[in-house]
Amino acid sequence: MGNVTLKQIAEKLGFSVATVSRALNDSYEINIETKKRIKQLAKELNYQPNPFASSLRRNKSKTIALIIPDISNHFFSLVIKGVETISQNKDYHILIYDSRESFLKEVSITKHLISGRVDGVLISASSETEDITHLQAIIDRAIPLVLFDRVFDDLEAIKIVSNDFESSYEATEHLIKAGCKKIAFLKVGENLSINAKRFNGYKEALKNNNVSYSDDLVIVLTHDEEKNFKIIKGLMLNTKPDGIFASVEHLAINCYDVFKSLAIKIPEEVKILSYSNLNVARHLNPALTTISQSAQEMGETAANLIIAQIESKVISSRQAKTIEIKSELLIRNSTKNG
Amino acid sequence: MGNVTLKQIAEKLGFSVATVSRALNDSYEINIETKKRIKQLAKELNYQPNPFASSLRRNKSKTIALIIPDISNHFFSLVIKGVETISQNKDYHILIYDSRESFLKEVSITKHLISGRVDGVLISASSETEDITHLQAIIDRAIPLVLFDRVFDDLEAIKIVSNDFESSYEATEHLIKAGCKKIAFLKVGENLSINAKRFNGYKEALKNNNVSYSDDLVIVLTHDEEKNFKIIKGLMLNTKPDGIFASVEHLAINCYDVFKSLAIKIPEEVKILSYSNLNVARHLNPALTTISQSAQEMGETAANLIIAQIESKVISSRQAKTIEIKSELLIRNSTKNG
Repeated sequence: MGNVTLKQIAEKLGFSVATVSRALNDSYEINIETKKRIKQLAKELNYQPNPFASSLRRNKSKTIALIIPDISNHFFSLVIKGVETISQNKDYHILIYDSRESFLKEVSITKHLISGRVDGVLISASSETEDITHLQAIIDRAIPLVLFDRVFDDLEAIKIVSNDFESSYEATEHLIKAGCKKIAFLKVGENLSINAKRFNGYKEALKNNNVSYSDDLVIVLTHDEEKNFKIIKGLMLNTKPDGIFASVEHLAINCYDVFKSLAIKIPEEVKILSYSNLNVARHLNPALTTISQSAQEMGETAANLIIAQIESKVISSRQAKTIEIKSELLIRNSTKNG
Repeated sequence: MGNVTLKQIAEKLGFSVATVSRALNDSYEINIETKKRIKQLAKELNYQPNPFASSLRRNKSKTIALIIPDISNHFFSLVIKGVETISQNKDYHILIYDSRESFLKEVSITKHLISGRVDGVLISASSETEDITHLQAIIDRAIPLVLFDRVFDDLEAIKIVSNDFESSYEATEHLIKAGCKKIAFLKVGENLSINAKRFNGYKEALKNNNVSYSDDLVIVLTHDEEKNFKIIKGLMLNTKPDGIFASVEHLAINCYDVFKSLAIKIPEEVKILSYSNLNVARHLNPALTTISQSAQEMGETAANLIIAQIESKVISSRQAKTIEIKSELLIRNSTKNG
């Protein structure tokens, strides 16, 4: 018996289709004895819930949730712009949530959404997120899910990422060619997928160019400006790197603050570059060399893929794939040779 | 007979309250003859639908629409952050829409919302918006509405604005004291409420300080970088102002581009300041003097007021008021005397 339907189970036991459906979904409206009988028969007949049907039922809100870790970050505001552009064209609505880099907030937001408020979920994880049970729960309920920028290898879903290993390798090699021999790598949090890829690109470039690697040069920072200022100041006074690779934009700004207060000259005494979508990077003092991610394109791609998934009624894990979008190294005065 | 209720009509005719309510709302579930009888009695008794009750009925989505003219603008991303913070605390959801400074898009977005998808609407108008019929329609349907930053005098609603006249006056006077005698005023679009207030502050400060005003110094720009570049270049080569007042952030960045290409020195040859929430203004070359609006506070205030309105079940026009939030002049090297 291949495709057993709810109707067949209902007919065999003399219940309505609605009762069978509710029983299989553990509704409190159905008494325990009835649930038991229905579940047992479903098991015997090897009943498989039809993802098409449940998706069809659900597909009525025309609403997508967009969960991001920090709305005020330029990268994410460009992603929002991209998602909103596609949604508006395709007549979808966007519910926006800011997890504030908090795992607990992120879990609480996703729990809210599972109730059926949205047709699909777009998410970039918080820097604290390690446990992905809350994301697996979305997939298990056959709610379309797309992850972007900060993703998880263990999750079978559509993922959109930047070519972080390659861009980080290229940027590190650029610093080496500009004369740096002691390059610090600054990052936020420990768990981020982007950290690992960017760090590996940095390490590999050092190795292939015979520049020695040291754990002292890998600095873990936060979103707290004051704390970051102290730590970076300590780094500049003690370890004295001649190059800084900021893996997140605001860390570069923290460095500019420290360099100003210590009167350290860029690029003469230290060179610096950063992942950044800051539109005024060219007007900073000095102009900042950036690795610019295609943020708006990432948002547009994410929106197109979630809508395609919603409308094709195929569940996420069956379409699992990773799409890579290229970033661009924009060389400016902050890494000028000499 | 003042306050006739649905219950009174129901009792008089022997129907349930639900039937009377559906009949008055033209539900297809009620037959034509019954509808006729109910509507006739309602008319005879001068029945007035209760906005409180309809608001109560509607209050179930716990969703607020946030319509802004440009998501990628720093000011608005901070406003979103503020709105989202309050909403998350109070268990509301935010639907986000970008009108892209287009009147037609804005109208289309608001039409979508009137169907009952949201409990309330927060909006900052597009720079094209003159006709406010679509906003009046929201008020007429007793949907709570709060306007922020870009508002309309003719609309009876809650409005949250910055103290634009005062901050603009203060900034213009600062330029005059720094030695400027020929100050250009750069703006986007013609219709914006903020334009008028900022322009009046500028004009009044010129007058009170005996600096002559000239129409040649008032420049209307757009969101098109290339066009703006040409116009500002023309201004610098022909009219040659010694001070620039950019009433919107991106116009200041356009000026920095022009000054760089013409090798015009700031602040020696021209001084410049701008309304801006750019967090790296202090690191620009030179550091930009800004009028910084309390963007996140504005978002928080807007969210608090719309939620209070939704939960108090009183319609917008009854609570019409304007709340002013102070901006701050942050003096940096771009307006340094000498």
